[in-house]
Amino acid sequence: MSGDAPTQRVPLPVPDTPPARQRVDSVVVVNTGDGKGKSTAAFGVMGRAWARGWRVGVVQFMKSGDWKVGEQKLARHLGVDWWTLGDGFTWESTDLDESAAKNIHAWGVARAKLASGDYELVVLDELTYVVNYGWVSVAEVVEGILGRAPKTNVVVTGRDAPPELVEIADTVTEMKMVKHAYDRGIRAMKGIEY
Amino acid sequence: MSGDAPTQRVPLPVPDTPPARQRVDSVVVVNTGDGKGKSTAAFGVMGRAWARGWRVGVVQFMKSGDWKVGEQKLARHLGVDWWTLGDGFTWESTDLDESAAKNIHAWGVARAKLASGDYELVVLDELTYVVNYGWVSVAEVVEGILGRAPKTNVVVTGRDAPPELVEIADTVTEMKMVKHAYDRGIRAMKGIEY
Repeated sequence: MSGDAPTQRVPLPVPDTPPARQRVDSVVVVNTGDGKGKSTAAFGVMGRAWARGWRVGVVQFMKSGDWKVGEQKLARHLGVDWWTLGDGFTWESTDLDESAAKNIHAWGVARAKLASGDYELVVLDELTYVVNYGWVSVAEVVEGILGRAPKTNVVVTGRDAPPELVEIADTVTEMKMVKHAYDRGIRAMKGIEY
Repeated sequence: MSGDAPTQRVPLPVPDTPPARQRVDSVVVVNTGDGKGKSTAAFGVMGRAWARGWRVGVVQFMKSGDWKVGEQKLARHLGVDWWTLGDGFTWESTDLDESAAKNIHAWGVARAKLASGDYELVVLDELTYVVNYGWVSVAEVVEGILGRAPKTNVVVTGRDAPPELVEIADTVTEMKMVKHAYDRGIRAMKGIEY
């Protein structure tokens, strides 16, 4: 229960009987699966955190800057810090392709924000892809999340969350696609899907 | 494709080959399942819709006014109309218990908002329970949604979405609980879960 003790970072075993409720300093939430709503729900948590007066940072992996325009507009309006992939990035490597290098750079930004203690909430949007493409090791990501400032809550989104990430998470939801308009020939709709 | 024709309300058959993309005037999204994120993702869509300059209305079924405080605060801040269960409700019935009567009243509000043409987005939060408790028939809900103003998008949330609702929806996501902090003795955290 102490602010400095990292005990809440070690996943607790699932007990046979309902345990007494305990408070923790912060939680790790993972939204994964092939369905809609992974990033959208993270974005909803961003709004809720704002309503509580929290300082919120979002690091957006993978996508180019053109995509989450609506999200960024609201984040700016609410005073949420938002880093899009490539922000502050300078090309230095000759061994990596640019996507890899930008995502590795973005992870470096994310890890620093996680450790800084500047945020009650850090959203790592689409981070699982960075791990699944092999650009950043899962061990590195786990270390960055476990090594966060004690009161920094984390939301990670993306398909195929690696088991090591599920292991250290407090709450994991799989968003499963039951039916999607796109399969029936309907285009993605501005305002609903982006 | 005409603004008045209700053709887009009839679910299209799933084609064997990817169809040419088409625009529709509005879509119906259902977030169901036992996991977290159903309402949170709806709330994220609310923020996105705001960013697009849409007029948004939220009707919140089931829950008392104390719960979604953060959501309501942001909604108010963004100029989103928000009706909580019981708003404008006057007790008249002697045959119904108060929960049933309040939820039936809230559905009446929702149906009027759907038909009004005043909104590009109407969120019907926790509506499935109202149907599943038998307070409003699924036929009535389907009729209300299909009879909405042509440009009004709809997001419905709640567990166990009835098949008739899935049938008329464009996009359905099942939020599946993989792991939840609560099962491991951790209390719901303000700012993350409410």
